Parts: sequence; structure tokens; C-alpha cells
Amino acid sequence: MAIEAARLSLSPSLAAAAAFRRRGPPPLVHPLRRALPLLLPRHRRRLHTLLAAAAAAGGDGGAVALSSSELRKRRGASSSSSSTDREDERLRSLRRLFARPDVAVDAYIVPSQDAHQSEFIAECFMRRAYLTGFTGSAGTAVVTKDKAALWTDGRYFLQAEKELSHDWTLMRSGNNGVPTTSEWLNEVLPSGCRVGIDPFLFSFDAADELKDAISEKNHELVLIKDLNLVDEIWGESRPEPPKEQTRVHGIKCAGVDVPSKLSFVRSQLAENGCNAVVISLLDEVAWLLNMRGSDVPNSPVFYSYLIVEDTAATLFVDNNKVSEDVLEHLEKAGVKLKPYEAILSDVERLAENGAKLWLDSSSINAAIVNVFRSSCDRYGKKRGKAGRQFGKESFSGEQATRSSGVQNGTLNALYKVSPVTLAKAVKNKAEIEGMKSSHLRDAAALAEFWCWLEGEVSESAPLTEVQVAEKLLEFRQKQDGFIDTSFDTISGYGANGAIIHYRPTPESCSSVGSDNLFLLDSGAQYIDGTTDITRTVHFGEPSPRQKECFTRVLQGHIALDQAVFPERTPGFVLDVLARSSLWKIGLDYRHGTGHGVGAALNVHEGPQSISYRYGNLTALQKGMIVSNEPGYYEDNLFGIRIENLLLVKEVNLPNSFGGISYLGFEKLTFVPIQSKLIDLALLSPSEINWINEYHEEVWEKVSPLLSGHSLDWLWKNTRPL
Amino acid sequence: MAIEAARLSLSPSLAAAAAFRRRGPPPLVHPLRRALPLLLPRHRRRLHTLLAAAAAAGGDGGAVALSSSELRKRRGASSSSSSTDREDERLRSLRRLFARPDVAVDAYIVPSQDAHQSEFIAECFMRRAYLTGFTGSAGTAVVTKDKAALWTDGRYFLQAEKELSHDWTLMRSGNNGVPTTSEWLNEVLPSGCRVGIDPFLFSFDAADELKDAISEKNHELVLIKDLNLVDEIWGESRPEPPKEQTRVHGIKCAGVDVPSKLSFVRSQLAENGCNAVVISLLDEVAWLLNMRGSDVPNSPVFYSYLIVEDTAATLFVDNNKVSEDVLEHLEKAGVKLKPYEAILSDVERLAENGAKLWLDSSSINAAIVNVFRSSCDRYGKKRGKAGRQFGKESFSGEQATRSSGVQNGTLNALYKVSPVTLAKAVKNKAEIEGMKSSHLRDAAALAEFWCWLEGEVSESAPLTEVQVAEKLLEFRQKQDGFIDTSFDTISGYGANGAIIHYRPTPESCSSVGSDNLFLLDSGAQYIDGTTDITRTVHFGEPSPRQKECFTRVLQGHIALDQAVFPERTPGFVLDVLARSSLWKIGLDYRHGTGHGVGAALNVHEGPQSISYRYGNLTALQKGMIVSNEPGYYEDNLFGIRIENLLLVKEVNLPNSFGGISYLGFEKLTFVPIQSKLIDLALLSPSEINWINEYHEEVWEKVSPLLSGHSLDWLWKNTRPL
Repeated sequence: MAIEAARLSLSPSLAAAAAFRRRGPPPLVHPLRRALPLLLPRHRRRLHTLLAAAAAAGGDGGAVALSSSELRKRRGASSSSSSTDREDERLRSLRRLFARPDVAVDAYIVPSQDAHQSEFIAECFMRRAYLTGFTGSAGTAVVTKDKAALWTDGRYFLQAEKELSHDWTLMRSGNNGVPTTSEWLNEVLPSGCRVGIDPFLFSFDAADELKDAISEKNHELVLIKDLNLVDEIWGESRPEPPKEQTRVHGIKCAGVDVPSKLSFVRSQLAENGCNAVVISLLDEVAWLLNMRGSDVPNSPVFYSYLIVEDTAATLFVDNNKVSEDVLEHLEKAGVKLKPYEAILSDVERLAENGAKLWLDSSSINAAIVNVFRSSCDRYGKKRGKAGRQFGKESFSGEQATRSSGVQNGTLNALYKVSPVTLAKAVKNKAEIEGMKSSHLRDAAALAEFWCWLEGEVSESAPLTEVQVAEKLLEFRQKQDGFIDTSFDTISGYGANGAIIHYRPTPESCSSVGSDNLFLLDSGAQYIDGTTDITRTVHFGEPSPRQKECFTRVLQGHIALDQAVFPERTPGFVLDVLARSSLWKIGLDYRHGTGHGVGAALNVHEGPQSISYRYGNLTALQKGMIVSNEPGYYEDNLFGIRIENLLLVKEVNLPNSFGGISYLGFEKLTFVPIQSKLIDLALLSPSEINWINEYHEEVWEKVSPLLSGHSLDWLWKNTRPL
Repeated sequence: MAIEAARLSLSPSLAAAAAFRRRGPPPLVHPLRRALPLLLPRHRRRLHTLLAAAAAAGGDGGAVALSSSELRKRRGASSSSSSTDREDERLRSLRRLFARPDVAVDAYIVPSQDAHQSEFIAECFMRRAYLTGFTGSAGTAVVTKDKAALWTDGRYFLQAEKELSHDWTLMRSGNNGVPTTSEWLNEVLPSGCRVGIDPFLFSFDAADELKDAISEKNHELVLIKDLNLVDEIWGESRPEPPKEQTRVHGIKCAGVDVPSKLSFVRSQLAENGCNAVVISLLDEVAWLLNMRGSDVPNSPVFYSYLIVEDTAATLFVDNNKVSEDVLEHLEKAGVKLKPYEAILSDVERLAENGAKLWLDSSSINAAIVNVFRSSCDRYGKKRGKAGRQFGKESFSGEQATRSSGVQNGTLNALYKVSPVTLAKAVKNKAEIEGMKSSHLRDAAALAEFWCWLEGEVSESAPLTEVQVAEKLLEFRQKQDGFIDTSFDTISGYGANGAIIHYRPTPESCSSVGSDNLFLLDSGAQYIDGTTDITRTVHFGEPSPRQKECFTRVLQGHIALDQAVFPERTPGFVLDVLARSSLWKIGLDYRHGTGHGVGAALNVHEGPQSISYRYGNLTALQKGMIVSNEPGYYEDNLFGIRIENLLLVKEVNLPNSFGGISYLGFEKLTFVPIQSKLIDLALLSPSEINWINEYHEEVWEKVSPLLSGHSLDWLWKNTRPL
């Protein structure tokens, strides 16, 4: 699926500057903007509605979690979304807490995040939604003693207007003149106030940035780490944290065993002069330990932290999630268990022992970093070591911590992107095999689905966008190893297709007919792989305009698919290939062209991307997986996107100028592209050839998995142009 | 002509980081590397041999200078290039100066630069060549009390080996293990030495970088501004500074009068809270004052500085260069004259008056910046103003000046790219007209030339690369308004064509025959415009390999030529379009794809570029001119380059997504591309169409300027494929 919202713009230079900056001054970007994945090197920000994150809904305990849609249905049945006076009561309760001596703040910020910067989060962490009543995926609430404001972006303006009570001011991010949260705080608070946050819910970098911004008005950022104010008012009705069982991700799919992965991380520690690293991104923990879970929808991860030390490794996780099998698996790899909540005390222990800690401050939350810093300070003083400079207790004193952060050499922390990030992005042979295999099963499900849908629409069966998405889920569920969708299906007919992050709701969605384009962006989690595919079709007669736009999007898709490039080429260099056919007639699309995809993991992962933001200098490497998804969106009329996943591979060429490798792509996705929408007159012979060869390959690979009508459908839809 | 040497590589991230950095820490890049234009946002570094810069050779005083080749011939006749004991004597003399009380240094660095960072310099400033005997264009000499080393890059290894005496060590820049000048100084000098430079010959940024690098070993950078040590030993035999007359660049060509330009600069001063700006780049002075000169070969500029103040403007130039006409022209615009040497005292005066000065520290020399800083300090103290922080005397004390440089707000200087740079790059209507007209006359000269050469080679006439270049000059000289070549012609037959910056010498050059490719990269200065064109031809039977490579270079050329892109697109985004056809078979070229070109000014200018270095974020803008020159070079066999100049223009499209402008290119160069070298099987119909349309346009535009054989030649060479 596409990974960039349309409304917010950030200059390339700013984005690029951000990428160079390790510990330099953070850009003055509103947290909402930061939530957009391509604006930052990492792709962990949530993009989909949190509604789908669903109730804990009785642990079924098996390896396969409830599907997101199932969870959504259950949740829908048990909660009301109308805005009543209840919101006011929640605000009142929250403000009452401001005065408590252990709180003592003048304002409190409630972001959408969990403690791991996850894209999809569990319902018990949907504090912003609980407090505000606004259920969209992106948003930040800020409450002062007499004001309450919610920031969200253009995708959610209408929804927020509906859901917010009149006690809330809607801040339309990206609109002219709308201040950022910190600008607003500096505006509405008298100088020298105390602004509270839960430091678990902000990455260290984000908290640091916020602290700097509000210090302009002499406000102090207060980290309230032992008490989340929203949880406090949520009380008994707050859903339980997820308690789903974890499972071992078998070596057949994982490819590399845990001891080997740990030993890689330890070699990285040694190389960087560190004794330990804290891993807090859930997909990184899952990848490193060859484990999977079902704590959140769409991503097979589980709430946990991991500390890898020179000679030890500790997983911080709720004991109940760990079966005998998993325990044995972990013991074999020398990984000990501790309760999830023990993370801070262990970080303190590391500080006490004088360990040099590797912290990825773009993802590790401020609570952890600050406990480490203050502990270093304390134990450093205790030991009375001269000449050794430890971090200062941050955010409370006048002394900024940034400067000490820069002096990694003299501090006990190394602030650097996690050693797991790149290792995880470069897939091994088994992961690639799993991705290929799961993509074929996914393709079979999609062929069955498209065959079915074509039939239904031709018989004018009344089907809504939601019903179509549910039927697609049914077809996927029949495939071996299916676990969940990999994100909420974007099922957009006509004008809805033009909304890049559209998510139909049963109450308000359109019917799928034969008068307009239908855009379907969906994906699945299988035991052995993760898929993400978009096709756009027309069940009637497409207009010449639609055909021209579709064909130009397709030309961009083909150009990127066929690209060959020298090793060390960053993804953004290729972005223009996907756009230039649209640019030729003055069209464009406001999202990136490609994102990384995990292997049986998160559907969005970094560090690579293919985007018109020029800040991400990560080179595409052999074994990485990226999406190829140019699009075009005509507001209020239709949307077009064509998406395949691609594997970066080395290509054999007759030359090798510079004695280096040249890279190209291998397709993972094998689902027909609707010929009806192609304006042949626009295509070059080599483009026509690409389509014919692709369809031939689709037929060869997917037909063995089909029979009956679906097989016929595949045959018809893979004939040469 | 191509603008990047092959051997040196710099990571894109470093290059990009450099572009973001205004006053931050400079990259640790050797001055030689910095001399490569695409590594830095500016394109003012010299690329061609300085040999051509020629003797002052009796001022002819007219508007039209002697051609570079003429100057070269005269010089060649009067000087010897063999390496004798004379070099040793020069080294000895230089070292004797080290001990003088007013010098007192342990080492001295002699770069290739003049005081204006010019690409082409006058002979009297070729101090490095005089001292070392090495006459290549790029190189830095460093002399200690007992060692002498010369750094140059791969283009000049052989030449330097021949020309340097055995007292010199050749440092092969870019080769593994070869230290930079500062690394070497840190290596060979005992800690705490004094390293001297002439601060006029280093930009402030370069000096700052050098100072930082050698401070690692506690060396002090000593700015010896009143005495150039090489000039001192050069003595009477040093050529006189050029005394060529300047001339008015008429409004018909310039388009905008001087008062308007000055008033633009003043509006920029006001906007930036400055009182004055020092312009030191010679092409910026020439552009701003609608003047041209003949002080250096290839560029119609004259040695001068310009200070523009709120209400005044002062040109610092040798009075003898200013005729009555020019004087009147300047007086009308309110521009006063002062001697060239008065620049420092005037900068001092500005400091005394408390002016806030705009300084482009990437081009302004360290002498000027430091005089301003120390004067501010002195006068600031004198006035005893509290709370006002002036710059410290740089380079001498322990207090680094960088940090104060960052605090523009509190300092009396603004360090920012010159206000003239972008204004000059965006051509006005008259400049565009002049460029178009001069390009047609240039095309006529080239058609005559190619017709002649084809005839000569077919009759097996023995012609060397130099003779061919001289004949080309003759054809150009016959064209109206011809002034000079715009750079030394690169005339490379066979293997010589693979040397990107090849310059044939009469002694060692090849004959042009019919067995291999012939690459000819040349350009001219006309009264109304500047040209730069490369064509590659074969007078016999090209091999299939040569045809394939040529065709792929051509495909890249066509792809870039046809590009359409949204406004605000930096040039580097388009670079991939010119390379991807080569990448497809594992080929590439190690230079940028496009550089800016001045209008009747320098053949290389910034700020825009089209390059695989991703650091230059300057957007291409309507009215800019860039070269389009992909190539391919097969070492020791042949070289291919196809170069046209392009004007960036707004394109009218059926759509305008995002409500913005879309830009494209208009060709300025109209010379046939040899059909014989094209492998038609590789081309798409639209590429074939491009070639046919181009040739049709060439015929229509250039045929009216031709007759006889040349006209026949043009007809034959513009027939459809």
C-alpha cells in the first residue's frame, strides 16, 4: 500500500537534512508530520486507522490470531462512537489530575503511539482515541487547564469533526496558519509552565525536539513515567493488555537461527565499542528471536523489549505469552526471560555496571533513555570517577542533554540506528523462498477473488466496498498459512479510490459497480511471508481519460520494474523513473513509490525507500524487498495505483563498469493487470513486451494453484496484448 | 564539456551533507577534491590546463582578445618546459624566505588558484606551475624545510612525472594510501609548526578547513597576506598582470541595465539586513556591471572586485583597463572606481562604519574575510559597544572562528551564497536571444568544419588532433562576434577520446583517422553568447560495440532532453534518465551529466547541475541553461560523448497537477548527430522520431547560414533515419 499522505508537504532539503542529522538539532516538525513515514528514514509510523486494532477479545491462544476484520467486528459491537458528554467528563477527570502533587502540570500531551513506535497498536494503548473520541489513526491531543485541541491531517478532518465533542478544538494540520502542538502551547500558556508527557510514548528524539520547542517560552517538559494520566481516568474499563501466545518462527522460514543472529549483533556491539543494545521495535525483537506473536492487528509481533549484551540476552515479555516450546527455543539460544515491566530496572542495572549502551534514539522511548542517563549520572558520581562525563538528567534542568548526547565518545551511550535494522531488511534465502511461496498462494486467492467479483458485478449484485474486502479475506483465509491481513484493506470505488488512505466503513461506504474504476490495495500475513498488492480495474467501459492515466501509471510501474542500477544507489534515485511518464502530461502523485516490506513481518519497514523525498540515502541492496506502486488520483473522480512487490537482486550483465555489481528487481507479485485499461497507442514495443511476459509468468506460476472458473479467468486475463 | 574527473570518488552522503552545511564543520576533503566542480555547489574550479592561460603577450587593447590557441603558440615559443636544476634553485630560494622574520614559517602551500577562484587564470598567477615546473591545471604544492610534494589527480600523473624535478615527490591524489595535503603536513612536521599560505589564494571556507585539519597536530595556519613567497622568488621574470581593456556588454545582449541589477542586489541586501556585499567572482562582477574583459583565456572577464552598498557601488580594477566608454557606462550607474589593490582598505572602512557585510565565504578569499573580521573586532572594541559580538581574528588564536561565524545574527557578517549567483543563472530574454543566435552561428562553423574534416580524412590527409582543433578555430573565427574558445578544445581520437579531460599537445598528439571514434568537445565565446558542444563521429566503419555504446549514450541524451518535470525539481533527480540506458548493460560514466553555462560568460557556472552527486539541491528554473552530455569511455580504446546545451523552459501541458508549473528543455545546439553510429534496433519509435525531428530542425535553422559543400553536408547529415 502507498505510504505517504497527500496533504502535508515538507521541503526535500528539510527531509534530507533530517536524514543526515544523527544527534543534531531536530527539525521543527509537528509530531503529526513526523508520523508520515517517508519524511523520516524509518517506516514505523502508523498509517492505518486504529479502529482496526480491536479489542483483546478473549485470547484464542493458537498460533493464528483473529483476523483484523474479525476483531474489528467484535469491537464495533461492543463500543459506541457517538460523541456524548462522556468526553467532557473525561477531560474534566484528566484536568483534575493536573493538580495532584505527583503530577503538577499545566498541560498534558496524548499522542497516538505505543511504547514501541508501532504502526499498529493494541486497543489498551489507544489512549488518544479514548480521551478524545476521535478514532482516526493519526492525531495528537493536547489538553491545558482550559483548552483541549486535537491535531490530525487532511485524511481525517471530516471524521474528527463528527467524533469530537464541542469541548475540543480541531487543529487541521497542514492547513495554512495552523500551529504545531508546541507552537500552540507556546501561544496559549503563560511563560514558564509545566507540560507533561508519558515518556514511554515518545521516542527520545521526539521528546527532545518537543522539549527544545517549548523551551522558547520557558516551559518545562515533565516526564511522568509512573503514571499515564489517561490510563488513570480510563480505570477499570480500559481493555486488558493483549495476552496472545507467541510462537516460534521456524528455521525453515527464518533461515538463520537465533544464536547466529545474536552473534551478529554482538559483533556489531564489539565493533562499536558497546556492551549492550536495547531493541524496542517489535519487529526487530521478533526477527532477532525468530518469534512471532499476535498482540496487534496486521503485524505478527508481540509486546516486548530485548537487551542483547556481550554474553547474555534478555527478553522482557509477559510470561504468560511464552509457551513451553517458545521457552525451550529461547533457552537454546541463551535468552533469559524477564517481565515486560522490568526493562527500566535492567537498564538501570546496565548503567550501574558501567556498560556502554547502544540506543537507537529515533525509536527507543524517552523513558528508557532517560533512566539510563540519570542512572549513569548517579552511579558515575557514586564511583566518583574523574574525567568521565555521564549524561545529565534530561528535561528537568536547564542543561540541555543534546550536547552531551553528541559526545558519544565520552558518554556511556552510542546513539545510532539499531544494528538489526539493516540486517532485517536484507532477506536471506529462506525468507526469500517464503516470500515467493506466500505470494503465489496470495496470487491464487486474488485470482479467485477477481474472478468472483467480476461475475458478481456483471450480474449487478449489490456489493459494498466493505463486503468486497470481506470476501477477499475469505479467499485468502483458505490459503495455507494465512494469519491476518497485513493492513486494513483499501477498497475504493470511484471517487473513494482517490483517497490514498481510504478505509471503507460499513455505514458509509459505496457499492462497487461498473461505471467507474475500482482500486483495491490489500495484503496478507502468512506464516512464511507478507504480501501487499494493488490492482485497479474497471468492470464496464473506462473513459479515454482513465485509460490514459492508467497507462501512464503502468508505464511508470514498468520503468521502475525494469530498472538496472549500480550498487550503492539510494532508492530515491529511481523514483523519477516511476513518475516521468505522468510528468510528461503534467500529472503526479503525492506519495512515495516504494517502501520496504518485512518477511512474515511488518508490511512497512525501513531503512530503504523509493521516494521523491531525497533524504533517505540508504542504498538498495541485494535481498531487500520494496514495493513498486506509482499511482494517480483525480480528486472526487477516481484513483489508480498499480503495486507489485519486488526483490532487489544482482543482475548478470555483459559489462560491469567500475568493477561493481549492478542490481535490478525480481517480481514477487503475480496477479494480472487489467488489459482493458491499457491504451496500447501510448506503449512502446518493449513496454508491451513487458506486459506480455509478465502475464505469461503469472499464468505459469499461478495456474497450477487454480481450477474451474478461476483458472479460466486467469487464462483470459493473461493473454498477450 | 564534461565537468568531472574520473578518479576521485566522494560518497553521495558526504557531498549531500556538504550542501546542507552553511557554516558547519567542513568535510575533510583534500583541496584537490574540492577542485572538482560537482562535489561542491559551485562550478568555478578550473578544469583545463593552465598552459593555455598564456602569456600576457602585448595588450592588443581591442574588444576582441587573442584566442587562447594563439596565446598558447606565443608562449610555447618563448618558454622551455624541460626540468632542470632551475627548479631546485627555486625551492632553495623559497626555503630561504621561510626564515625571514616577517615570514617565519616551517611550510608553505602553493595552490593553483587566483584570488577569485577562477576556472581560467592569468599567467602571472600560475605560481604553482612556476615553482614546481608542473604545468597541469590542477595541483597543489607543499614545501617544508626539507621536503617538497605536489598533489595532482589521475589526469596528470604522467605529465607530472615528466615535469617535476627529483626534488619533488609526486602525490597521486585518489590513489589508495595517498594522504591529503593536511594529513601529510601532520605526518611530516613535528607538532606545533607554522604553515604559511597566501590568504588571497584560498577561499575563506577552504582556509578554515585547512586550519582545522592541521590543528590536530597543533600546527598554526599563518596568513601571509602582504607577500606571496613565490612572487618574491619569481621576481622580475614574473609576467605582468594582464592589462587588457574592458568593454561594455551592450544592453542588447545584457537585457537588463546596471542600475536595475544594482537595485536588485540592494533589495537583497535590505531583505537580509545587510549594508554591503563584496562580489569577488569575476563572472559575477562582469554580469552585474554589464562589462566584459580579456584578462584570462576562455572567459570574458577582468580582474576586479565589486562592493555594492546601500547607496554606493565601487569597482576595484586597474584604472588602465577602463576606457572612456566604460567609465561613462559606470558613472551612469553610479559606480565609482578604485584601484584593484584598495579592496582591503575599503573592507576595513566598511568595518569601521559598522556595516553588516554579506560575504559568500565559499568564494571570497580568506584575506578579505579576515581583514573584515579583525577590523570589526578592532573598531568594535574602540567603540566599546557592550553586548555586540564581533568576529575574532581568525587562525591565529586558539578561539575558533567557526562558532562566531554561525552567529550571524550577532556578528557583522552574513555568510551566504552571493545574491548574484542565482540571478545570473536565470537568463533574461535578451541573454536567451543572444545564446540562440550565437549557437546558430556556432553550428554553421561546426557544419563547415565537419564537412571539411570528413573530406580530409576521406582523402587520408595527415591531420593531428591539434591541427583539427586549430582548423575548427579558424571556422569559428569567421563567424560574427567571435571572441575566443570557451575552453581548450578536447580533440581526442581513439584511445585519447577515453581521457575525459584530454588536451592534445603538438608534440604528442595522435592523427585523426578512419579506424576509430573521434570525440570533439569544444566551445566558443561570442559577443552575444557562449557555446559548448560535443560530437563523436567515425569516419570509417564503427564496430558493433561502438555502435551499441554510442546508441545507449544517445538514448540517455534523448531521455534527458525530453524530460518534463515539476518546478522545484533539483537537477540531480534527472541524472538517472541519462544513465539508465547504459546501466541496463552494466555501463556508466564517471562525470556529471550537466552543468550551468553563462550567457557570454563562463562556460561553467552554478548553482544548478545535473549530476549523480546528490548534494546540489538547487532546483532547475525557467531560464537556466544546462549542458546535456552523457558519455561512455572505454579505457585505452575509445570515448563517446554527445553534448547539447539546453534552456530550461515552462512547458504547456494538458494538466497541471498540484497547480504548479511543469518544466522541460529547449535545445540551443543544432549540429547533426552521426547516423552511422546509431544501432537502430535498440531505439524505440519515439527515440527515432526525436532524432528525425532534431535533424529537421537543424536543417531548418542552420541551412540558411551555409552554402556549397557545407550545405550539402548538412543536407546529407540531417536526412531521416
